Amino acid sequence: MCTDAPALVEAIRSLAVRGAPLLGIAGAYGVALAAARGFDVEDAAEALAAARPTAVNLTVGVRRARAAYRAELERSGDREQAERAALAAARALHREDAEASTRMAAHGLALLDELLPGGGHRILTHCNTGSLVSGGRGTAFAVALAAHRKGRLRRLWVDETRPLLQGARLTAYEAARSGMAYTLLTDNAAGSLFAAGEVDAVLVGADRIAADGSVANKVGTYPLAVLARYHHVPFVVVAPVTTVDPDTPDGASIEVEQRAGHEVTEIMAPQAPVAGAETGGGIVVAPLGTQAYNPAFDVTPPGLVTAIVTEEGVVSPVTADALTVLCDRSRQVTI
Amino acid sequence: MCTDAPALVEAIRSLAVRGAPLLGIAGAYGVALAAARGFDVEDAAEALAAARPTAVNLTVGVRRARAAYRAELERSGDREQAERAALAAARALHREDAEASTRMAAHGLALLDELLPGGGHRILTHCNTGSLVSGGRGTAFAVALAAHRKGRLRRLWVDETRPLLQGARLTAYEAARSGMAYTLLTDNAAGSLFAAGEVDAVLVGADRIAADGSVANKVGTYPLAVLARYHHVPFVVVAPVTTVDPDTPDGASIEVEQRAGHEVTEIMAPQAPVAGAETGGGIVVAPLGTQAYNPAFDVTPPGLVTAIVTEEGVVSPVTADALTVLCDRSRQVTI
Repeated sequence: MCTDAPALVEAIRSLAVRGAPLLGIAGAYGVALAAARGFDVEDAAEALAAARPTAVNLTVGVRRARAAYRAELERSGDREQAERAALAAARALHREDAEASTRMAAHGLALLDELLPGGGHRILTHCNTGSLVSGGRGTAFAVALAAHRKGRLRRLWVDETRPLLQGARLTAYEAARSGMAYTLLTDNAAGSLFAAGEVDAVLVGADRIAADGSVANKVGTYPLAVLARYHHVPFVVVAPVTTVDPDTPDGASIEVEQRAGHEVTEIMAPQAPVAGAETGGGIVVAPLGTQAYNPAFDVTPPGLVTAIVTEEGVVSPVTADALTVLCDRSRQVTI
Repeated sequence: MCTDAPALVEAIRSLAVRGAPLLGIAGAYGVALAAARGFDVEDAAEALAAARPTAVNLTVGVRRARAAYRAELERSGDREQAERAALAAARALHREDAEASTRMAAHGLALLDELLPGGGHRILTHCNTGSLVSGGRGTAFAVALAAHRKGRLRRLWVDETRPLLQGARLTAYEAARSGMAYTLLTDNAAGSLFAAGEVDAVLVGADRIAADGSVANKVGTYPLAVLARYHHVPFVVVAPVTTVDPDTPDGASIEVEQRAGHEVTEIMAPQAPVAGAETGGGIVVAPLGTQAYNPAFDVTPPGLVTAIVTEEGVVSPVTADALTVLCDRSRQVTI
């Protein structure tokens, strides 16, 4: 449990709190929390926004609560009212995220039915994008869940998602809890599934979408996009409009977080805390002193993305212009 | 330590003894061992050959020692002499494998220098193909080692190779011991390296090469081949001629071993014994009851393979005809 902003920053850094939409909600509540506990709101907002560099939703959530706080403070000069405004902004974001999730699920399912008219979808997913990362049912997982509830999901293929095994630990749990037919696989085994014609579509989330449609998402997403292209399988990104960052022009401009090597050289028991340690305290699986390359995300260029599904509708083909139109529409609605 | 053939069969099944060339050597010694300890040689040969279905070298080694045993028994009628003949055959295979390793390294290095005239090779490899799987320096790893010794290896990128982490546990160890500049990565992170232009060539081994040039190798090899093609990076397979199986016409005919799901749903400490158990006794990382898809190998079609390097020379482009010529030449030399 996080009772102040520094604890929340640490929870975000250690991935106890993770997943793009949830990071936005947590960032907003974090600002409200800092305000309620009498911390410097500007400092807290800065620390929260900087806790992880890639997920734009975190910054969006932090900014929104801070803007509400600032505006109310300026208007009334009353700190208590400003606190309440920050909390109201966080709650609104939370509620909107839940609603966005429902709308993404509906748009995504309609897209799947259009792309795969035969039904009996076999969906491959990566990392974790369900209710554990969302105010609602999530992003990509919410689409698979909607297909499942309509009886149109034949199987959910769950990439384990090394190094932190979000697929094995979290998505498999969400799939089991929802009664889906699901199968876990190492990230390495996805290629065999594609080759065997066992994947009808790939559904993933996103941590940041650049203005040109480049998608930063959990490392291992880009290889799936290349495999999907090679096998003529639709590759679909599901994310709320807030994930699109007009200030990031293209894929090369996306800062990809590099994480500690011990996430690769050691394997953590799922229950163990990972917070802050330089060595993970896990089971060492590589020679001591082994250097590891451990980017948290990779970037998929728009040309490999069949469609981006948002709560405001589907963008396909993925172009800068189409994304601009979508973002403008979204701004008209929500601001 | 294996003191009889059944113990060796178990060691092969549990992967305590693994890697295509080493399996051949172990199979041959296993037949000699069965003969020396008075077991039924035919039964032992059958059990050994069936211990794992994909690596053709295992069958080749078993057959060779058994043929020597049978021939000597028929000639002299003397069991002791037949035992000695089986052991001599195993030793000859062992010696030949070491020599083959040296020749593969030389051919492979010449090929690298031809493909990448600038030097400073950054090589990506998968699974483990060094002296831990060979009578000599191995296959793909032997080529990287030869480049290193000539000062032409800038970096060895080591895929960790889930589920059993042969890259992290074994290749990283061999690279460290050889003083190479190496970096470990999750299999997921290879895509980012390709995208960043950090991979000059991929070098992998093989467990079986079909007559058409399709390559069965550790799961995760095929996605690398697709990534390499997409990024115009040479994808090179290094394997002794015995890995080519003229009796397997094509990729679809290769039997791919499916292994227990607990290799995926549980993470084993590297020291822990895995022999025979249905559950691994490892750290559980997925919900109980989770079904896993766990093929040990995948199949890369010849069109994605830039070259196959053998001790008899390099085949490039990879065609059924070129492989036939190579195998015929090899047979003339060794039989």
